[in-house]
Amino acid sequence: MLEKVSPEKKLPKGEYGPKLEELGLQLGEVQRRAREEKRPIIILFEGWRGAKRSEIINTLMQNMDARGFDVLSTMELIDVTDRPAFEFFWKNLPGKGEIRVYHRSWYYLRNVHEGQRNKAAKMFGYNHINAFEKVLTDDNYIILKYFLHLSEDEQKKNMTDEDTFGFAIRSKHLTEYGRNEQRADYKKFYEQYDKMLTNTDTNNAPWHVIAADSTKNATIEIMESIIENLTAKLDAGKVDAPVEARTAVKYDALSKIVPYQEMTKEEYKEKLSKYQKKLTKLQVEMYKRGISAVIGFEGWDAGGKGGAIRRLTSGLDPLGYQVFPVASPTAVENNYNYQWRFWIHLPRTGEISIFDRTWYGRLMVERLEGFAKPNEWARAYDEIKEMEKQWVDSGMVVCKFWLQIDKDEQLARFTERQNTPNKQWKITDEDWRNRDKWEAYEEAVNEMLVRTDMEDAPWVIVEGNNKYYARLKVMKTVIDLFEKRLAQK
Amino acid sequence: MLEKVSPEKKLPKGEYGPKLEELGLQLGEVQRRAREEKRPIIILFEGWRGAKRSEIINTLMQNMDARGFDVLSTMELIDVTDRPAFEFFWKNLPGKGEIRVYHRSWYYLRNVHEGQRNKAAKMFGYNHINAFEKVLTDDNYIILKYFLHLSEDEQKKNMTDEDTFGFAIRSKHLTEYGRNEQRADYKKFYEQYDKMLTNTDTNNAPWHVIAADSTKNATIEIMESIIENLTAKLDAGKVDAPVEARTAVKYDALSKIVPYQEMTKEEYKEKLSKYQKKLTKLQVEMYKRGISAVIGFEGWDAGGKGGAIRRLTSGLDPLGYQVFPVASPTAVENNYNYQWRFWIHLPRTGEISIFDRTWYGRLMVERLEGFAKPNEWARAYDEIKEMEKQWVDSGMVVCKFWLQIDKDEQLARFTERQNTPNKQWKITDEDWRNRDKWEAYEEAVNEMLVRTDMEDAPWVIVEGNNKYYARLKVMKTVIDLFEKRLAQK
Repeated sequence: MLEKVSPEKKLPKGEYGPKLEELGLQLGEVQRRAREEKRPIIILFEGWRGAKRSEIINTLMQNMDARGFDVLSTMELIDVTDRPAFEFFWKNLPGKGEIRVYHRSWYYLRNVHEGQRNKAAKMFGYNHINAFEKVLTDDNYIILKYFLHLSEDEQKKNMTDEDTFGFAIRSKHLTEYGRNEQRADYKKFYEQYDKMLTNTDTNNAPWHVIAADSTKNATIEIMESIIENLTAKLDAGKVDAPVEARTAVKYDALSKIVPYQEMTKEEYKEKLSKYQKKLTKLQVEMYKRGISAVIGFEGWDAGGKGGAIRRLTSGLDPLGYQVFPVASPTAVENNYNYQWRFWIHLPRTGEISIFDRTWYGRLMVERLEGFAKPNEWARAYDEIKEMEKQWVDSGMVVCKFWLQIDKDEQLARFTERQNTPNKQWKITDEDWRNRDKWEAYEEAVNEMLVRTDMEDAPWVIVEGNNKYYARLKVMKTVIDLFEKRLAQK
Repeated sequence: MLEKVSPEKKLPKGEYGPKLEELGLQLGEVQRRAREEKRPIIILFEGWRGAKRSEIINTLMQNMDARGFDVLSTMELIDVTDRPAFEFFWKNLPGKGEIRVYHRSWYYLRNVHEGQRNKAAKMFGYNHINAFEKVLTDDNYIILKYFLHLSEDEQKKNMTDEDTFGFAIRSKHLTEYGRNEQRADYKKFYEQYDKMLTNTDTNNAPWHVIAADSTKNATIEIMESIIENLTAKLDAGKVDAPVEARTAVKYDALSKIVPYQEMTKEEYKEKLSKYQKKLTKLQVEMYKRGISAVIGFEGWDAGGKGGAIRRLTSGLDPLGYQVFPVASPTAVENNYNYQWRFWIHLPRTGEISIFDRTWYGRLMVERLEGFAKPNEWARAYDEIKEMEKQWVDSGMVVCKFWLQIDKDEQLARFTERQNTPNKQWKITDEDWRNRDKWEAYEEAVNEMLVRTDMEDAPWVIVEGNNKYYARLKVMKTVIDLFEKRLAQK
């Protein structure tokens, strides 16, 4: 792609200032329009060392409307390779109507960490990058990507940055990297950049390569490009991605499950106490090793999620786990892509996040009640697998429980709740309405269980009619998964 | 206070389980009520090493309704002494209708950091603690404080915690502290704790000291206490703190200011460029030294805040500063105390936060338009001074600019905006309405400028009729403040 960089339009002397002001006014207008239309916007900058990224961004900032607009720096990211690849970017995602300028981005993190480059390059592989950008643009995020290109001569000239702010940050937070290498071997980096650009130049998020030998000309060109591209995207409006063609497969994961499994109260009590002690020890081991876990609970209403979670956590120290009850998204959560509210609750290193209902709501209630459009839930199977894969790749234990009861058992539990004064709050009209749609839910659940079951992020179906059995199966499964993971390097 | 700890109510054998369940149901009810009534609640635990805090909290969690309830651990706080004292707790404040349980709290941080105890004890001095708690309870937060007390015998017995989760965390994140000391010198700690409890046992946030030799009895006692105290607070409803008596002083800071000051375009251009270069260098120095800055801008509508900020930042690297435009609070921001939205935007270490309008809105628009009640804005003078003092004490540069123009100049600028197509968005009906209340605003501004001017967090009044002069005065003031701060240790 770098070959095709168009030569810079030279601006006659004295025209830079007025031109900048004119473009700033236009940019302000587009910006206010984007805010009104509630489009979230990412404008990212990558490019050669020495391309004066900071100077260009600052000029941009001087000429933009400061409201709903900020700059994200990835300079201070430390130990990113110990966390799921895109976690930092999910946590710092712009919301609806916000513009975020990325001084550097996920492209930079591909190779910033000296000594960890192989791992970083894998984490931020082109497939992961393209998937991440697609999740967002499919959700009507606008992503503008700028690569600041320098000729070899100019690049060599500009490489003395010891007294800049960026250098001060890097020397404090990062192992120094790239500068000397870039100076020594322009061709090698040229090829690397070219490959990166070619592999990530997608229809939904194309690259704009800008000749940046002259900072002023580059600034003008970028401003013009932002105005032009944002206007085009806003004119096009929000677009529903096409619905993927669906195969007429009948999925089945539940039909062979026998919901009632034998377990006496005596056996339960004895094993419960044993498993609690085991979990107490494992939690310490996991923490010491820095291994985190994400455990999701789904199941029929009154399937016993709450009780299973309480027994699981009874052996854990509250300092190291958190339970996140998931209900319909709040106003704040609706301001972002649907994945956001789960990414921000990932466990800290060595800790455990337990979700009482999960991101799989996308494939059940949101699908069946129409909260997600057909194109949205249809693509969520792949999106969710990519998300969980990133968690697993970062070393986390990931597991999803489906608590299976039959229709009669649900009716018995609903009735009992209805008739017990201090349990009545647990049962609502919505529960009865959902029950009426049992067959539709069953179909969706079957498809979900089959299509999102992964070796390292498995669905575990729990026979739930007998609560004793169900709770112990959950605890035992977690114990086994933790032990298996601890046995790995 | 410790002398008066009442002996434990012994529970007959076999009654613990059923009692726990009964209290859990009651607690669940109070909890749902608190959520409905949108009261934010803090329940904090302090006490002796070995008092089984984790076990008690976990039992609580097992028996509470998981929605809107979580546990905050302060175990991982590192280098807290480099940040403003209560920043961590502001950032992690529960919102309306949320209950947050604090496994340890600000009381713990008084003396956790070996080698930095003097500094920590000052940061979390009793006056600061009481002020922090009062800001919240005045705003109808509910704070329940529990101290788990152990007898000397029991304390010595329980001190082997090497295989617990808490120990694993501490040995990873904190310098080990207190354990050996506590074992060796119960009396010394007894006196320290007693002093702490006595000094922070306030009407608005009293201590509940719990005899914890028997973990089970302590758990029951705590649950009963939470139910009783939350119910009492909820029954009492939200209370408006009384309005403080106000002295009939006429405050004046503005009458002697001459809004127009001479400055030619030539002088402006020359100095602008000089100041930009100076700021570029100072920003690097400040970053290297880890010194942050908070710079606030207030002033009459059309007073030139935006233009002054743009010139100030024109010499700065965007990686190290952020501009926060402050408008009326969003739904999320309204979910917390009014200070919250400023605490969460404090600069990272070595960086600069610039606020375009600030927390002083409390004393101007919120006061005059009735968005804050008389008791709320009347106490905000002290609250704001305490807040800024914490920022300064942590080493930050703090400064507030008031951009002063006269009424004629404002009219001229309003009219020009009205008549310039691409500036019309800058002027609204509200601006004209505010202009009609000039005299009322002037009175409030005078009081604010006098009463919140502090040596290390000064108000700088900027003569604003001549924009050249105003912009340079802002830049020069910041340069001087940075240089002065860099000259200190």
